[in-house]
Amino acid sequence: MPMKLTILGSSSALPTSERFPSAHVLNVHERLFLIDCGEGTQMQLRKSRIRFGKINHIFISHLHGDHVFGLYGLLSTYSLMGKTTPINLYAPENYNNILLTHLNDFDIHLNFEINFIPLSGKDPVKILDDKYLTVTSFPLDHRVPSFGFLFREKPYDRNIKKESIEEYKIPSVRIPAIKKGENFITKEGIVVKNEEITVPGPASLSYAYCSDTKYFRRLSSFVKGVDLLYHEATFEASMENLAATTGHSTTSDAAKVASEAGACTLIIGHFSARYKDINPLVKEAREIFPNTFPAIDGHTYEVGLINDP
Amino acid sequence: MPMKLTILGSSSALPTSERFPSAHVLNVHERLFLIDCGEGTQMQLRKSRIRFGKINHIFISHLHGDHVFGLYGLLSTYSLMGKTTPINLYAPENYNNILLTHLNDFDIHLNFEINFIPLSGKDPVKILDDKYLTVTSFPLDHRVPSFGFLFREKPYDRNIKKESIEEYKIPSVRIPAIKKGENFITKEGIVVKNEEITVPGPASLSYAYCSDTKYFRRLSSFVKGVDLLYHEATFEASMENLAATTGHSTTSDAAKVASEAGACTLIIGHFSARYKDINPLVKEAREIFPNTFPAIDGHTYEVGLINDP
Repeated sequence: MPMKLTILGSSSALPTSERFPSAHVLNVHERLFLIDCGEGTQMQLRKSRIRFGKINHIFISHLHGDHVFGLYGLLSTYSLMGKTTPINLYAPENYNNILLTHLNDFDIHLNFEINFIPLSGKDPVKILDDKYLTVTSFPLDHRVPSFGFLFREKPYDRNIKKESIEEYKIPSVRIPAIKKGENFITKEGIVVKNEEITVPGPASLSYAYCSDTKYFRRLSSFVKGVDLLYHEATFEASMENLAATTGHSTTSDAAKVASEAGACTLIIGHFSARYKDINPLVKEAREIFPNTFPAIDGHTYEVGLINDP
Repeated sequence: MPMKLTILGSSSALPTSERFPSAHVLNVHERLFLIDCGEGTQMQLRKSRIRFGKINHIFISHLHGDHVFGLYGLLSTYSLMGKTTPINLYAPENYNNILLTHLNDFDIHLNFEINFIPLSGKDPVKILDDKYLTVTSFPLDHRVPSFGFLFREKPYDRNIKKESIEEYKIPSVRIPAIKKGENFITKEGIVVKNEEITVPGPASLSYAYCSDTKYFRRLSSFVKGVDLLYHEATFEASMENLAATTGHSTTSDAAKVASEAGACTLIIGHFSARYKDINPLVKEAREIFPNTFPAIDGHTYEVGLINDP
């Protein structure tokens, strides 16, 4: 599983006995990324048996409690567990002071550094770029500044055909460059086109998180062609007025974004506590975007390979 | 059940998959009192199907996160639920500013008042006194200012014997005073002693919460004769040094306090995450104080009538 998503919480502001507040863990080749950190995240991490000591990047979409209030306990737990590696914390720009003040109020002295990466602005910004992936933040439209996140694996190298290595006697020192797409030139000076001696590597995968937000036209451009789109769908389609007032989306809004973005798969979540049964919400979204699935606490979804859980 | 206690969290600072951080609900004749509010309290309240909208009094023992970090979410939920009745919040004296600042940082505007009752000082203080019960706070000995709470039902009225009403022709207007202990004087001026015409009402019950604290001699005097004592027992008896350093108690410390106080029953909790099986801890405490039971998340204990859950 190169990229998998575990839902730790699928509720909106009011949790239920079945649904905790927002938190996702994205696992990209066993590197773990925590996205939002609602109350109870550390307990959900333990329940899901996720080795959460390995999380070094935490992304906070916006400063509403149901996306943040688990962070104090989690950081405090990390400190008690003896974590020493830094945490990169990506959050709205004014959160650093709030966090440090609150930890100090509670006499919490962390053993590790927090590298704070402030989120702001009206355009997508690349906020992480390493060997394996990039993460881009982009603005959402909510009652307070809110940001989505797009995780995109870097393109995989192409694979060289074994028979081509033998046929052209390709020395091993040239192989890395060919995997990156270069042509091969034989001793005789003949150019062998890359496409002739290689096949494409595995498709690189992508995941986007959009919560909390109301619908706006430009959003789909930020997540164009994403493999898995998580989009909040707090309300049923008929509650568009309440959605507009509260800065949230309906099932139709979420499906519309998925459709406009040309996403492969949509997961909806952040369900209002009024819905005991979320199947009707999924049904509504499927009318617009058939490949829709519900977020369910504790479930893990393999990006690119999702079946109904 | 006139007085019952529900444990919402029995872990110390590091929660486990079985044990949430500290929170208790005491139900006294269907009036609900929340004692400490660790992360996840609102989810545990829902799981236990406690009608938590009825909680109007919240007691915070000390300002360590595992006793407080559920409060932001709970207050926010109350507001979303439309609660309008005030919350009386009893907490260490500097918490009011911390709380208000943090709610403000998160744009949380409560629909209801918080009446803040600051805890301080080195002696027991009566912090609540109403028709049915009194609550007294008393100092504990921890790394930061920490307070225990003693809930004590007011004495019940005596019951008048039916046959005495007939025999002495006691008018109904005199009955309330007689129930309070007054003698009855007949038309002929004969004094009938109260004990002759009444029997005692039900025994009034009491519950004390002691967490977090290390052992100190004076503590038992604060909870003298209590029916049910909850006392933290973070560590096994042999870890007395770590207990001393961290300001916590061992199983033996908890049992010693129960014994010195002449408590009827002891519940131990606030268990370190190192203990998967807590039965050995209970066994240790029972060597000193046989009537000891473990705190278990989600269990309800009837004060005065506890059997092994």
